Amino acid sequence: MDRTYIYADHAATTKLDPQALEAMLPYLTEAYGNPSQRYAFARPARRALREARETVARCIGASPEEIYFTSGGTESDNWAVKGSVCPGGRRRIFTSTIEHHAVLHACAAMERAGCPVVYLPVDAAGVLPPDTLRAAVTPDAGLVSVMLANNEIGTVEPVRELTGIARQAGALFHTDAVQAVGHIPVDVRDLGVDMLSASAHKFGGPKGVGFLYIRSGAELSAFMDGGGQEAGRRAGTENIAAIAGMAAALEASVLRMEENRVHLESLTERFRRRLAASGLDAVLNGAENRIPGSISASFRRAEGEMLLHRLDLKGIAVSTGSACNARSTELSHVLRAIRVPEEYAGGTIRLTFGPENTAEEVDYIVNCLREIIGG
Amino acid sequence: MDRTYIYADHAATTKLDPQALEAMLPYLTEAYGNPSQRYAFARPARRALREARETVARCIGASPEEIYFTSGGTESDNWAVKGSVCPGGRRRIFTSTIEHHAVLHACAAMERAGCPVVYLPVDAAGVLPPDTLRAAVTPDAGLVSVMLANNEIGTVEPVRELTGIARQAGALFHTDAVQAVGHIPVDVRDLGVDMLSASAHKFGGPKGVGFLYIRSGAELSAFMDGGGQEAGRRAGTENIAAIAGMAAALEASVLRMEENRVHLESLTERFRRRLAASGLDAVLNGAENRIPGSISASFRRAEGEMLLHRLDLKGIAVSTGSACNARSTELSHVLRAIRVPEEYAGGTIRLTFGPENTAEEVDYIVNCLREIIGG
Repeated sequence: MDRTYIYADHAATTKLDPQALEAMLPYLTEAYGNPSQRYAFARPARRALREARETVARCIGASPEEIYFTSGGTESDNWAVKGSVCPGGRRRIFTSTIEHHAVLHACAAMERAGCPVVYLPVDAAGVLPPDTLRAAVTPDAGLVSVMLANNEIGTVEPVRELTGIARQAGALFHTDAVQAVGHIPVDVRDLGVDMLSASAHKFGGPKGVGFLYIRSGAELSAFMDGGGQEAGRRAGTENIAAIAGMAAALEASVLRMEENRVHLESLTERFRRRLAASGLDAVLNGAENRIPGSISASFRRAEGEMLLHRLDLKGIAVSTGSACNARSTELSHVLRAIRVPEEYAGGTIRLTFGPENTAEEVDYIVNCLREIIGG
Repeated sequence: MDRTYIYADHAATTKLDPQALEAMLPYLTEAYGNPSQRYAFARPARRALREARETVARCIGASPEEIYFTSGGTESDNWAVKGSVCPGGRRRIFTSTIEHHAVLHACAAMERAGCPVVYLPVDAAGVLPPDTLRAAVTPDAGLVSVMLANNEIGTVEPVRELTGIARQAGALFHTDAVQAVGHIPVDVRDLGVDMLSASAHKFGGPKGVGFLYIRSGAELSAFMDGGGQEAGRRAGTENIAAIAGMAAALEASVLRMEENRVHLESLTERFRRRLAASGLDAVLNGAENRIPGSISASFRRAEGEMLLHRLDLKGIAVSTGSACNARSTELSHVLRAIRVPEEYAGGTIRLTFGPENTAEEVDYIVNCLREIIGG
């Protein structure tokens, strides 16, 4: 069977949407002006920046002046965590044990700087129960940072309930929505968040760009100091091509969201049925309420690294954990936190389908898994 | 006379080199894998990352493992300043009064955090005399940060002499080389710097990417925490297309550097001669040792904002100060630091020529200035 490579790792990164590339090209060629300059030559760049901000804002229910362009999800997360607390003031951080390392390691940096961090446990599906936060929160709470959707197991967190608790405690609420934006409906007012991080390359935009939503009035110190860009809150010449590409990709993702959801859920449902019929001994991780197209499967007495490698040889790209710790062979912090049974946890792979994946590819993947594990 | 727009603001940003765009396109289309992933599909991205690091290192006399990719000059400057000192330890920062705001405002942030900052004065040409640093440096010096070339007046600083003084004092030395890399020869070993910042879009690369050179063994805490990218020192999915574009642009800039220098110096020399012959009352700012193609001219009793606007109407893009404070009508900190005579300072414009500018364009600009100011 002659088959091209099957890419099933869309949570790691996605193909750039051709519409996004088209939106980028003018700013990679003739319209190269620096949007901070006031002459006519920079006008197309200034206009593109303004329009991108409006588009992004509209896609998440924000106002344009609440959107701050960054270099990606990691910067957005670092900014939100490091900018919202400081030793001496309201300083305690509450976060979950299954956050992305961009949040966890930023929290650890603040802990070293004198801001205590409380890591809240999740249940077996990876959900942080609101009561857990309610019982833990203290009067010196400065920040609650809980992701909207988990990158390894796809679980969607009850952010709307969590934000209410944070607000009552007088703490800011940040959500790392890197895996959610463009994939599930996101409305910042409905969620009640003060800050929300996103990364373009997770929804068909280019790498190296993202944004941080900051609610009007939310106090946050600058992370990148320098020029007066982004209303004086995030310095650095605007990455105008990438910003235009991100806006185009986000708009397209939101337009196709329902269509994509139906397709992706048919793929994951097919995977589950085929897997059940395969006779392979596996557990599926994560909650019912999850990112469409996302599967975390743990195979008994298998080895994730070996599975990744053997699937790769068969032309299939999957992940063993999050993209950011794939070089480590240790069990990921997420799989540990949800206490996947020991004889299964080591054999975990993450499949994250995208709009271009097909039912035939799903069948091929399950067949390959049966050959590799069951053979 | 029918003429297209004349872009003479290359210190603000440059046109993307077509070779750089070509180097980027594979990673904006088919080769979109996340370089942190280990499957075959990500191999082209991993290879491009490795090759870009080798190219950039070669262009500045560094080793590949000393190059850390960032989102641009501002991030590199923030990282160098904020990562190298901390309250309690060796903590005093020495910098010049004419640094870019990315350095000055990062220093101010560290000052608020408890690290005292000493701002060293420059002479009338914008040069920081090594004796000034020698006389000022203290035993608690943690960092000396002095730019390699100034963005407003083009002056090249005596960094090689300054690094020797910092080394003797046991302080790290950082240089903001954003205006220098790709324009004048830069060799990190010869300069003796511990850290060096660069920004791709200043030398024909894309916006939103840059690098920080960190000498092997130099201690610097992380600025962006998260995944293990960039040897665990700078988290975030690599901006692979932009990184490949930056490397291609830098390589091309270094290859054409001498040819460009000859052309650019002929343009600035022509500008000086024409200006002298024009009868306009002006002073030229900056030192003899300067970035090729850079002119800072202050016209008596003129108003920089008005000049920029009137030149713009005639199809000419110049700057009144640095790109990053062009929205401010205050006299820039650089012009104040070099004490441009009051009746001239307000009428300052910066012209920064690029390889595509011509002698005819220079003549046209001077003619326009005569019409605007002298008419």
